[in-house]
Amino acid sequence: TQNYRITLLPGDGIGPEIMAVAVDVLKVVGQQFDLAFDFQTALIGGAAIDETGEPLPAATLDTCRNSDAVLLAAIGGYKWDSLPSHLRPEAGLLGLRAGLELFANLRPAKILPQLIDASTLKREVVEGVDIMVVRELTGGIYFGKPKGIFTTETGEKRGVNTMVYSESEIDRIGRVAFETARKRGGKLCSVDKANVLEVSQLWREGMTKLASEYPDIELSHLYVDNAAMQLVRAPKQFDTIVTGNLFGDILSDAAAMLTGSIGMLPSASLGASGPGVFEPVHGSAPDIAGQDKANPLAQILSAAMMLRYALNQPEAADYIENGVLQVLQQGDRTGDIMSEGMNLLGCQAMGNALIQIL
Amino acid sequence: TQNYRITLLPGDGIGPEIMAVAVDVLKVVGQQFDLAFDFQTALIGGAAIDETGEPLPAATLDTCRNSDAVLLAAIGGYKWDSLPSHLRPEAGLLGLRAGLELFANLRPAKILPQLIDASTLKREVVEGVDIMVVRELTGGIYFGKPKGIFTTETGEKRGVNTMVYSESEIDRIGRVAFETARKRGGKLCSVDKANVLEVSQLWREGMTKLASEYPDIELSHLYVDNAAMQLVRAPKQFDTIVTGNLFGDILSDAAAMLTGSIGMLPSASLGASGPGVFEPVHGSAPDIAGQDKANPLAQILSAAMMLRYALNQPEAADYIENGVLQVLQQGDRTGDIMSEGMNLLGCQAMGNALIQIL
Ligand SMILES: CC(C)[C@H](C(=O)O)[C@@H](O)C(=O)O
Ligand SMILES: CC(C)[C@H](C(=O)O)[C@@H](O)C(=O)O
Repeated sequence: TQNYRITLLPGDGIGPEIMAVAVDVLKVVGQQFDLAFDFQTALIGGAAIDETGEPLPAATLDTCRNSDAVLLAAIGGYKWDSLPSHLRPEAGLLGLRAGLELFANLRPAKILPQLIDASTLKREVVEGVDIMVVRELTGGIYFGKPKGIFTTETGEKRGVNTMVYSESEIDRIGRVAFETARKRGGKLCSVDKANVLEVSQLWREGMTKLASEYPDIELSHLYVDNAAMQLVRAPKQFDTIVTGNLFGDILSDAAAMLTGSIGMLPSASLGASGPGVFEPVHGSAPDIAGQDKANPLAQILSAAMMLRYALNQPEAADYIENGVLQVLQQGDRTGDIMSEGMNLLGCQAMGNALIQIL
Repeated sequence: TQNYRITLLPGDGIGPEIMAVAVDVLKVVGQQFDLAFDFQTALIGGAAIDETGEPLPAATLDTCRNSDAVLLAAIGGYKWDSLPSHLRPEAGLLGLRAGLELFANLRPAKILPQLIDASTLKREVVEGVDIMVVRELTGGIYFGKPKGIFTTETGEKRGVNTMVYSESEIDRIGRVAFETARKRGGKLCSVDKANVLEVSQLWREGMTKLASEYPDIELSHLYVDNAAMQLVRAPKQFDTIVTGNLFGDILSDAAAMLTGSIGMLPSASLGASGPGVFEPVHGSAPDIAGQDKANPLAQILSAAMMLRYALNQPEAADYIENGVLQVLQQGDRTGDIMSEGMNLLGCQAMGNALIQIL
């Protein structure tokens, strides 16, 4: 038996519900593949604020550091929206990324044939779309200094944030991206705003330099405004995209929405060493929390990504992913992906349907 | 007769072709509405670099300042892409915006019923979409300092740009946006990243403060990642959007692409006083330059925006806009918007078809 220590961060809103289902699925898969999971649950986000006064208690970061991987559900909600920013749930997420040095965020946006009609785009435009956005996650304008709200000599307030990238930061995310493209379609598109921003010029230089080490990968460059357009115009042109923290935030969400079903999309955040964090792309959906309506599949697919990227168990990952396709194939749907003639299930029932198949 | 001094900046690529057509149209409309245009042509972008060595010669800025409005076509091309950034065509455009203090950029994204099939989105999703993006154009990360590529003590390069907004900058673009929303559907959505960026927190505060002066306008806020998603998911929810320079660059292009026909979209850049600049949203399309294939309608509609916003001639603007709808209605199309059963026209022929109608 292979043993793994997994930290669970259920967080807020629908987080605890979808996490419970994902844990059930992991247990079943563990039995079949002879894997034993030692689950530790820890506090983050609003739940942590309510209990401890801070969005990322030191104990949580410790627990995460002492585990093989972290499975996160979702954080945030209206309830905490008026707190000062360093005490808000988002600060917990940013602190986790910084604390574990998770510099590489992988966000797949893949159209599932069973759900193609959920897309707002025409079938012929999105059929076969399979994009991986590699987003830099611990640098750029999210963390750059100076930052803050300052008062000028004239008494006027100025808000300031700084977008910074160093050569080494660009190099390490670039390597992850080239390696990722190599395991996929061999095409990498680097997105920047090099026609205006110096930080993007350095970014573009860094990516171009790396290309000589990856002669098998076809590297291209797009400005971020054009990339946003091309995602809407012809998303099939993309294979792997690499970009900075802010552009990645925007473009990965746009790419995700092309699928029409963000309740289906997982993500992975990885560092150079130490545990990675695996979480759904969607948020905490406070409006449907506690009602057994949430779609647990993105959380389950995040667990599959964890098996693949952190625990080196690709067969177990495949097994879950195929199970999810089958559950969709037999017509099971949660509310967010419901369409005519399908079976509407709640969160737990969807988990049970999957477990039946597994 | 009303006299107007208009500076023409044909720029690069297809710029001169589409500008020539727009000037012909303006002349015809001028006769009908008793308007006399004194056109001055000046250099900008690559054309200016080739002739004078700089993308925005002082003489060009002078000519613009001494006119009632500026009609710009497009700048840039592969030819100048390897020049240092302060000598590239884009620097001319940024210099023009800064030099004329054009802090408000209005970018409509409106679906024309005649061209609805050009959209990659499903008809029911985009039918009736009519969005106005009000983008701040002389501040934010485009102009903030410090900026540049610096070498650290360890000899590593760091690229740096600074996103800055002051209260007064936020206030003045906010007022333009609220006024714009008032003339439209009365709904204003402010887009920021206030859950991460301090500059966005100040932005959100500023917009919220202004809302009390515009009780008839319904103000909402979205994070930029969510806004990018919502544009794809349900674009009809938007009326007027206000946002900073960088987010506006990205979102206005995404919104434009929802229409499927960016060859049709004009824009206006306005300052507190002095001449505004009117230009198509599309670029200089060097690949089809000089082949009489370009779509001149965005340039013509930019001239209409000029009549409306700068010259206070709304009837003449309406007249052009209706003419464009009629030309589409009778089935005339350039290559970029061609579909089965329509008449394919070149750039000049499209202009002539419109002039026939006018
Ligand atoms: C919640 C927020 C801080 C976060 C981000 O901007 O990174 C989210 O949008 C994401 O993409 O994971
Ligand atoms: C050409 C470039 C500098 C410009 C910008 O980023 O503003 C363009 O993309 C635009 O939107 O007008």
